[in-house]
Amino acid sequence: MIDFETHPSRYRHWRLSLEPPVAWLTMSVAEDAPIAPGYRLKLNSYDLGVDIELADAVARLRFEHPEIRAVVITGGRDRTFCAGANIHMLATSSHGFKVNFCKFTNETRLAMENATAYSGQRYVAACNGTAAGGGYELALACERIYLVDDGSSAVSLPEIPLLGVLPGTGGLTRLIDKRKVRRDLADVFSTLPEGVKGRRAVEWKLVDDLIPRSRFTESVRERALALAAEDGPQREPIALEPLAPEVTGEAVRYRHVELALDRGARIAELTVRSGAASDWALRAFRELDDALLRLRFHYDDIALVLVKTRGSIAQVLATDSAAGREVLLLMARVLRRLDMTAKSFFAVVDRGSCFAGSLLELALASDRTYMLDDSDVRIAIGVLNDGALPAFNGASRLALRNVEAREGVFDAAGALEAELVTAVFDEIDWEEELRVAAEERASLSPDALTGMEANLRFPGAESMETRVFGRLSAWQNWIFSRPNATGEHGVLSLYGKPERPQFDWRRT
Amino acid sequence: MIDFETHPSRYRHWRLSLEPPVAWLTMSVAEDAPIAPGYRLKLNSYDLGVDIELADAVARLRFEHPEIRAVVITGGRDRTFCAGANIHMLATSSHGFKVNFCKFTNETRLAMENATAYSGQRYVAACNGTAAGGGYELALACERIYLVDDGSSAVSLPEIPLLGVLPGTGGLTRLIDKRKVRRDLADVFSTLPEGVKGRRAVEWKLVDDLIPRSRFTESVRERALALAAEDGPQREPIALEPLAPEVTGEAVRYRHVELALDRGARIAELTVRSGAASDWALRAFRELDDALLRLRFHYDDIALVLVKTRGSIAQVLATDSAAGREVLLLMARVLRRLDMTAKSFFAVVDRGSCFAGSLLELALASDRTYMLDDSDVRIAIGVLNDGALPAFNGASRLALRNVEAREGVFDAAGALEAELVTAVFDEIDWEEELRVAAEERASLSPDALTGMEANLRFPGAESMETRVFGRLSAWQNWIFSRPNATGEHGVLSLYGKPERPQFDWRRT
Repeated sequence: MIDFETHPSRYRHWRLSLEPPVAWLTMSVAEDAPIAPGYRLKLNSYDLGVDIELADAVARLRFEHPEIRAVVITGGRDRTFCAGANIHMLATSSHGFKVNFCKFTNETRLAMENATAYSGQRYVAACNGTAAGGGYELALACERIYLVDDGSSAVSLPEIPLLGVLPGTGGLTRLIDKRKVRRDLADVFSTLPEGVKGRRAVEWKLVDDLIPRSRFTESVRERALALAAEDGPQREPIALEPLAPEVTGEAVRYRHVELALDRGARIAELTVRSGAASDWALRAFRELDDALLRLRFHYDDIALVLVKTRGSIAQVLATDSAAGREVLLLMARVLRRLDMTAKSFFAVVDRGSCFAGSLLELALASDRTYMLDDSDVRIAIGVLNDGALPAFNGASRLALRNVEAREGVFDAAGALEAELVTAVFDEIDWEEELRVAAEERASLSPDALTGMEANLRFPGAESMETRVFGRLSAWQNWIFSRPNATGEHGVLSLYGKPERPQFDWRRT
Repeated sequence: MIDFETHPSRYRHWRLSLEPPVAWLTMSVAEDAPIAPGYRLKLNSYDLGVDIELADAVARLRFEHPEIRAVVITGGRDRTFCAGANIHMLATSSHGFKVNFCKFTNETRLAMENATAYSGQRYVAACNGTAAGGGYELALACERIYLVDDGSSAVSLPEIPLLGVLPGTGGLTRLIDKRKVRRDLADVFSTLPEGVKGRRAVEWKLVDDLIPRSRFTESVRERALALAAEDGPQREPIALEPLAPEVTGEAVRYRHVELALDRGARIAELTVRSGAASDWALRAFRELDDALLRLRFHYDDIALVLVKTRGSIAQVLATDSAAGREVLLLMARVLRRLDMTAKSFFAVVDRGSCFAGSLLELALASDRTYMLDDSDVRIAIGVLNDGALPAFNGASRLALRNVEAREGVFDAAGALEAELVTAVFDEIDWEEELRVAAEERASLSPDALTGMEANLRFPGAESMETRVFGRLSAWQNWIFSRPNATGEHGVLSLYGKPERPQFDWRRT
């Protein structure tokens, strides 16, 4: 079982070095420590284990090290920045694992951009050698990209010519959307196996500057210090304590969150309890985040997640009011992780529930919300529902439903009237209606549901983030499922083997 | 070979009846006239042949019947509007045909919306009976949807529960983007095989109004007349003459356009010649449109299209200046059809070429542009390059490259400087460079190229159109390629058979 928790003291693949206000995050992948047996992580190539450490570092820097204002990502191997995702790992993984791996790495890179934009921790890629494929995509997630000027080091996206798949970790999208590389040059670049180096890399906007090897580190440090000197939010350090859930065959139990699994029915219950502790919001949403990752990677047969809450509406609204900036940013990211999780989510508003404020967002993010018509059952709009926890495109989840946020408590009739819930049932019908809805959902084609949810969950304006997940990832998933890539004679399957790939040449 | 040209006098499936200012377009599909043998078009279900007639009707109404200001689409069978795309046709088609069929039907529906928005021909869906699947998607492409109130007629999107595929002809996108149906209600609706009828269909914004059967036709007529009475552009009729190309094994020859095929190299040359005739622009772009459809459906092994022009820059700029409103709208649609064509396009600016104005847009729409460095070779920005031929998202193609439109003629050095072309070669290198670039392109994985182009061709803001093609279609393509839909035991493969589908339950 993959563990998504780690700590700098246990990193195998990264070195985190703090020189406030700059942090150096150095990739030095241990070849012999893949997350699963069967391949070696050569040339600073990465797998999920490497990226779990990166995600941990990005999160810890934000919470535990507010004194850090710039983060330099560089390569710890001579003349190599990063060779991208390990191809043997990809070639030998199931379709589902490939898709979930790409999703996670995409989310990590978005977290770097989120830290740059909102936490005053500016990411800088110091490409001390060639940045290839996912290696260059890692650099693309940084605000600045510096390339060593040594006559040989290049940036490249060789996936299409060498592997028959896309640079799917945001590569194509960030080229044209973020760096504004002209689309015809992006086309040339994305089909050149050797990539682009030197002056042309700057002219094409692929990197921000070239730096000679002799003063590479020093020059990167100066530039990082200059970024670190710019204005940013003042914050206090917050420790990220271990979550260490108790895992059994039927459940994953955290302090405030429980994930209960009915493997036979392919239905899970995800319950969040309110709490009075000052760290409740941080802890509960970190637990939710971990539970979502486990749902994706460990419980791929689960079709439907019933989202429940237990506790006090007043308590949730009170802890919401005290939530600090970095905690709010985390909560929003976790909700967006839910948007991107290929499971159906039905929120269940029943007796003892507390769908208010931040927890109401869980219902608004769900595909449907069912509410019991009972005088004891209420939901509440609070201060965090008015844009503090933005969805993928910057809008509040209420705004995405065209509902005006007005703080207040709603009974079932009021919630239906305010367009906050999908359906209301009284005590007599409640259990049967829920049972039928859940069973029907779990009986549908899992692929069709994934496609439907990937469309309906993203109404309104698009952002770079939605374009990475909606457009780029959807095409990549298609390509991953096609014989030209993953068939017996597909180019990804045959990578590193003497046999030449055989293509079905029909363009579709 | 499919013929994309037709005429109302030859329609098998539609009746076009003109009662100016209203036209009635009645769907009455001939069961025994599918475009390919092997299935019957029951219950007003459609195939490509039905949609080719619809596309023809939409185009002819715009050009030949400007007196028509509202178009009512209704069903010609008792209590049936339209049952959507024929399932047996889909289940027995190749992946490539399914994808191209969906793309064409999507483009036809966008043409209806384009006519509604820009040609003052407002489309109204008069659902005289149930509109299911693609039938409801046809209604969604209309500005107004009226449903007969007879206690049984419903609108529905049963694809997900019954077929394991998406409502992929814009259905999911138009629900939330165009009609602003709340996403949780859209979720419920899209999983209900029987759909929604009566009052609830109005409350959920699925239809605009209910009309009793007794006064259905009369009431629809009144509403169409009211729409027709609103302001719209004044236009003169323009006849759409037959194109009737000469087709051989190596080429398709039109009056102004020639498509030459090198099947062995999997490379085609698409050449447009300038002309002095007053109908040059209309004719040349209609020919281009037909050639693009043939490339998609008849020549699916062609990987790369070299786009060439022959003639006079002055002539193109002169005919451009005289182009009327409806012709401009057509030109823009043809260019967007090129954007959506799963072939690589390289524009070749050589001696004798005339990439100016409307024909320069062909180069700007191509994936790359190569230009010969020669004193006789020029390109020119004209009056139509400043937004008259908008790309998918409403912006000009120059704006999408961040190039300011300034009319003028450019030699190779000037064109490179102005960021109008990808690369320039002199006489010595020209042929070899082009040959190598073309051969390299044609050697790459066709799937990876389709995915790459579907990302790089759409920089910047998204629109409903790009969301239909980028997000919805990409997911649908993935689902079409998955065993849960099209495998031996997939739900689409088994439609109408007694065997129950078997799902791989893993959510991805």
